[in-house]
Amino acid sequence: MTGEDEVEVFLNSVFVRVKSWLKEADGSEVHLDETPSDIRRQVRLSLPLEGEGLEGALEGIDDFLLHSVRTHHSNFMNPLWGGFSASAFAGEVISAVAQSSMYTFQLAPIATLVEQEIISRMSEIIGFSDGNGVLTTGGSNGNMLGLLCARHSHYPIGMKTGVDGRNLVMYVSAESHYSALMAANVIGIGHDNVVKVSTDEDGRMNCNRLEEEIEITLTEGKTPLCIIATSGTTVRGAFDPIAEIAEIANRNGIWLHVDAAWGGACLFSNTHAELMRGVELADSICWDAHKMMGVPLICSAFIIKNPRILRQTCNHTRAAHYLFHSNTEDLDLGHMSLQCGRRIDALKLWLAWKEKGDAGWAKLVDGYVELAEYLEKLVVDEPSLELMSTRMWANVCFRYNPSSSERNSEIDLNLLNSKLRDELSATKQFLISRSNIAEDVILRPVIANPGVSLEVLDKLVSEIVRIGDELIAAD
Amino acid sequence: MTGEDEVEVFLNSVFVRVKSWLKEADGSEVHLDETPSDIRRQVRLSLPLEGEGLEGALEGIDDFLLHSVRTHHSNFMNPLWGGFSASAFAGEVISAVAQSSMYTFQLAPIATLVEQEIISRMSEIIGFSDGNGVLTTGGSNGNMLGLLCARHSHYPIGMKTGVDGRNLVMYVSAESHYSALMAANVIGIGHDNVVKVSTDEDGRMNCNRLEEEIEITLTEGKTPLCIIATSGTTVRGAFDPIAEIAEIANRNGIWLHVDAAWGGACLFSNTHAELMRGVELADSICWDAHKMMGVPLICSAFIIKNPRILRQTCNHTRAAHYLFHSNTEDLDLGHMSLQCGRRIDALKLWLAWKEKGDAGWAKLVDGYVELAEYLEKLVVDEPSLELMSTRMWANVCFRYNPSSSERNSEIDLNLLNSKLRDELSATKQFLISRSNIAEDVILRPVIANPGVSLEVLDKLVSEIVRIGDELIAAD
Repeated sequence: MTGEDEVEVFLNSVFVRVKSWLKEADGSEVHLDETPSDIRRQVRLSLPLEGEGLEGALEGIDDFLLHSVRTHHSNFMNPLWGGFSASAFAGEVISAVAQSSMYTFQLAPIATLVEQEIISRMSEIIGFSDGNGVLTTGGSNGNMLGLLCARHSHYPIGMKTGVDGRNLVMYVSAESHYSALMAANVIGIGHDNVVKVSTDEDGRMNCNRLEEEIEITLTEGKTPLCIIATSGTTVRGAFDPIAEIAEIANRNGIWLHVDAAWGGACLFSNTHAELMRGVELADSICWDAHKMMGVPLICSAFIIKNPRILRQTCNHTRAAHYLFHSNTEDLDLGHMSLQCGRRIDALKLWLAWKEKGDAGWAKLVDGYVELAEYLEKLVVDEPSLELMSTRMWANVCFRYNPSSSERNSEIDLNLLNSKLRDELSATKQFLISRSNIAEDVILRPVIANPGVSLEVLDKLVSEIVRIGDELIAAD
Repeated sequence: MTGEDEVEVFLNSVFVRVKSWLKEADGSEVHLDETPSDIRRQVRLSLPLEGEGLEGALEGIDDFLLHSVRTHHSNFMNPLWGGFSASAFAGEVISAVAQSSMYTFQLAPIATLVEQEIISRMSEIIGFSDGNGVLTTGGSNGNMLGLLCARHSHYPIGMKTGVDGRNLVMYVSAESHYSALMAANVIGIGHDNVVKVSTDEDGRMNCNRLEEEIEITLTEGKTPLCIIATSGTTVRGAFDPIAEIAEIANRNGIWLHVDAAWGGACLFSNTHAELMRGVELADSICWDAHKMMGVPLICSAFIIKNPRILRQTCNHTRAAHYLFHSNTEDLDLGHMSLQCGRRIDALKLWLAWKEKGDAGWAKLVDGYVELAEYLEKLVVDEPSLELMSTRMWANVCFRYNPSSSERNSEIDLNLLNSKLRDELSATKQFLISRSNIAEDVILRPVIANPGVSLEVLDKLVSEIVRIGDELIAAD
């Protein structure tokens, strides 16, 4: 075989594997529940000194697929993403074969326009009339960038002189994502300056407490820098009241960033957009298309009301004479990014959006929330299950709690539910998340997978009850 | 057609396009040299309200490919990456279809082991006996993470209290990458605290100057925090003398990070590993597999000698009860990352490594440098071209300079070479980089594309001379 033929044969073999992986999904187990040593025993992980050619690569692919989690399986409801989108997958394939880097228009001409089209549309949906932004490396990174823009806006000279971060304070809900701590550490304000504002009974930031915390900061002689409101918390799917928070932020001159990594897609839905009422009053927002919108990881938008601040924050790009030339300055998206080399993450979203349209996104969102409502109802109707939080979005938080029976009153429910989740995983039939609400261990399936159906949810609930009952019986 | 059939037909159409894109490479132009309005006139960029189905997505793919740069074309020698690797491309395809997120072993079991295998092997090659690390979102991000680890190592309590960055100083060569400024701004030490140490005539950091700069910092009462040595500068491909710098860093208790994004692959080569002599003395390093090693963007390793510091720097993950459970703590790579959701970037490198082996990487590196030597020789032998820097790696820096002719002594060579690069791009036959060395505009093709051959380089040089001569004649 010539080299070219060999490549073609290899690629054909790869494509065959892609198609059979997709076909086998629901006929197979969600995962194999293996330990590292299980895998090590079966797979030659080590890297060879002498190459094994494309044959070796193909063997690697077979090993990889065999031992991977079927995240496209309908019973995969663990993280805030899952399932398969053909158009978005095709976008990844094309982005890989026609790869480029998003720094300059010259090297990524249509990709630049595609990304700007998406950003400008998302900006419009948010309600930022002159907004702009960039795709980042994920929600954590987008939150960090929001905080960085807040810092730059507050203290622009700090870019030159450095910043004393010890007196800068940020506010998040007590149920916010851990990336707030990451961002605080990275930009140098420290974990102690992350004020976790307590939440109401449904997990939403308490605005009275927020005002009190700001007062405390001021009394301490510190500077309130940034509020991060969460639209769709990780565990409960709670939406902080943006309009009220924005009023407080505005009154106190504090930057408002919205972490809508998980919840942003509600804006497509006439029914659910209300959850983010007031988002147009924020200063910046991050919104992951790789979560509810089902685009492969990573596809995360950072959008800012005043793009000048983002460009200033990325002012370091002025030094890169080897990359940017002044005649294309406005076109080169590298001027709005903390990355230099950057993948084309826009194409997959553009293709999925072409396939679905705004109407398709709305339908997807409404459908997911309806399924979550159905699951909520199953939980409420099942005596041995206890709903642990009001359902507001596609997260359903509950636990197994057979408390009606006398004997069961002494059960350690946290231990029981942890065990239950392990046992459920061990069946290899379902993957859902285990988490905490306050001191309680809960189970938290989410609906973010187009394969999930009423039947899947029926089966999930009966499986959980079966395992719970067995654990109780065995006790 | 049922939905499943429709998806299969669609995917087949996508794969056909992949194969024809690969086949047509060298028969086509490198790029179309279009303006944004050229593209806007031909492509429906806007996102539809009503979905257009997979047909709409397919149209989008055709548009995208038509207007993209052929970065796999043999005449593409512009950025520090290019060309096509079938095994690595297959890795991207499989990572997309069997997608997961790298935070936990449970969700990414084999991907976790694959990534650790790669990191541990790279660590071994570097000479860190207990090193560990993580794939990041690129060299810029890796440099930032190195700086962050330096800060944490110097002042661990800062993670809690915040940091006064105004007195922390870092040192880079005057020819280092602009990400040093980005990182300094992000972590809050500011651009003014980035000391650009002058370089020798070949673009390497001057160690005497480095020592003087450290003295100045101390005299000013500031703290020398971190030195970033560059292994393979963007423009000239210069390698800072790591062993000497490490001695200075060690003597002064300063963290040494090595930016080997571009040069790291030299470590595979018996001939060229010498360029990074002393790298085992560094504290951390970033090394991009998506540059010389030809893996699709992004595949960037951050490796640290003392992994405990990286884990401490990512201590925010302790807050994520919804993600990490204590029983798999050592296995969950999320504890070493600033990202939460993180793509599988390891598979593509693992497959390429299986295909090539260490021996194949060495051959690739040696071959690229030989081609660069050949290009250097062509430049030196061509009277109207002027080599602008000693060639040390796969970068060749030169300019068109017909200075032998009397009449030409008044030519503005910078303007001429800028024009020349524009004209060369306008032929659509080649893409090379334009850059500066000190005040001089230079041309900088790099060899980082497996398609480049002696013939390609012959043609490049004759094309440059032809265009230069025409510009002179037209003047």
